[in-house]
Amino acid sequence: MEYSSKILEQAVESFSALPGVGKKTALRHVLHLIKQDPKIIEGFIHSLDKLRTELRFCTKCHNISETEVCAICSNPARDHSTICLVQDFRDILAVENTGQFKGIYHVLGGLISPLDGIGPNDLNIQSLVDKVNNATVKEVILALNATMEGETTSFFVFKKLNSFPIVMSAIARGIAVGDELEYTDEVTLARSISNRVPFNDSLKK
Amino acid sequence: MEYSSKILEQAVESFSALPGVGKKTALRHVLHLIKQDPKIIEGFIHSLDKLRTELRFCTKCHNISETEVCAICSNPARDHSTICLVQDFRDILAVENTGQFKGIYHVLGGLISPLDGIGPNDLNIQSLVDKVNNATVKEVILALNATMEGETTSFFVFKKLNSFPIVMSAIARGIAVGDELEYTDEVTLARSISNRVPFNDSLKK
Repeated sequence: MEYSSKILEQAVESFSALPGVGKKTALRHVLHLIKQDPKIIEGFIHSLDKLRTELRFCTKCHNISETEVCAICSNPARDHSTICLVQDFRDILAVENTGQFKGIYHVLGGLISPLDGIGPNDLNIQSLVDKVNNATVKEVILALNATMEGETTSFFVFKKLNSFPIVMSAIARGIAVGDELEYTDEVTLARSISNRVPFNDSLKK
Repeated sequence: MEYSSKILEQAVESFSALPGVGKKTALRHVLHLIKQDPKIIEGFIHSLDKLRTELRFCTKCHNISETEVCAICSNPARDHSTICLVQDFRDILAVENTGQFKGIYHVLGGLISPLDGIGPNDLNIQSLVDKVNNATVKEVILALNATMEGETTSFFVFKKLNSFPIVMSAIARGIAVGDELEYTDEVTLARSISNRVPFNDSLKK
């Protein structure tokens, strides 16, 4: 598309570099912003600037943080001997929202995926091994996606940490709460049968 | 959702104010930006800043422009006696891309839509009437959407300009090039039959 304005074109370029945003959507965003109060764009610029200058990654767990060590890692009330291994910052949000986990996290930053050219060295695996080696860690919970890549990565991490005297656990795979047996795929159902738990435990929230 | 960082929350707020962007997509955008080179965010900020400070609306046709009068209105090679009335800046792009129109434009800024609370006074209709009144305009082409709102607005503008000694035309409604008769809705087909043109004219590109 030919834009009459270079400025417009650059703004469209910026937006269309975002994941899942094409030229048409980007143009729609830009036109929306132009029609707003200039204060809205100022606020946008301000928040992006803050993002650029003040947001960093926690040196301990690679979580997104405003400080060198994130709020979770620097909280003495949390159980530092239990590490929950997650793929991404968003998974921390998801687990935190359950209110069930009081340990600390370690963010891998992705999953092993040869098709996408992501190998073990592109992930924060070595820093996890160092952490387990140097600190008093009792348990590592593998909380990765139940996909091919997630399972592969879990297995790789399991192999890496197998020699340490720690408990390695994985979050349960099974039928989601509210789901019907009839519509559950056979792999999930098979897993939930083989990993069955005492009925009393299953009532625990 | 609870974010661990105020900065992150503000950035997500900014993105989710864009049309069609929810909190999850906004978070995805922000996380994408954090992972990029800081230069990308700088470029983003720069283009937004330009948008805010240097982009304005043409005082003559309300097109988006970098100058007080846009490139089309200030071009002496264009036919200033033929005005194409469009809803939006995007429609100018669409018509310009055809390479068929050598006149100038007038951007309404929307369509009459009582349900959305948009009345004639919210649109740039009076400035069009003034233009027709003061300049030597020969023809106004109504190039609005073929929707209920578009037709209503076309009719309103037609009524407003009816008393002036100008030609009022509307872009042709009919079967799109490449479409099959069988799958065309009856209203469109009826219109394209009643507005049939001499076969020789229909071959014109």
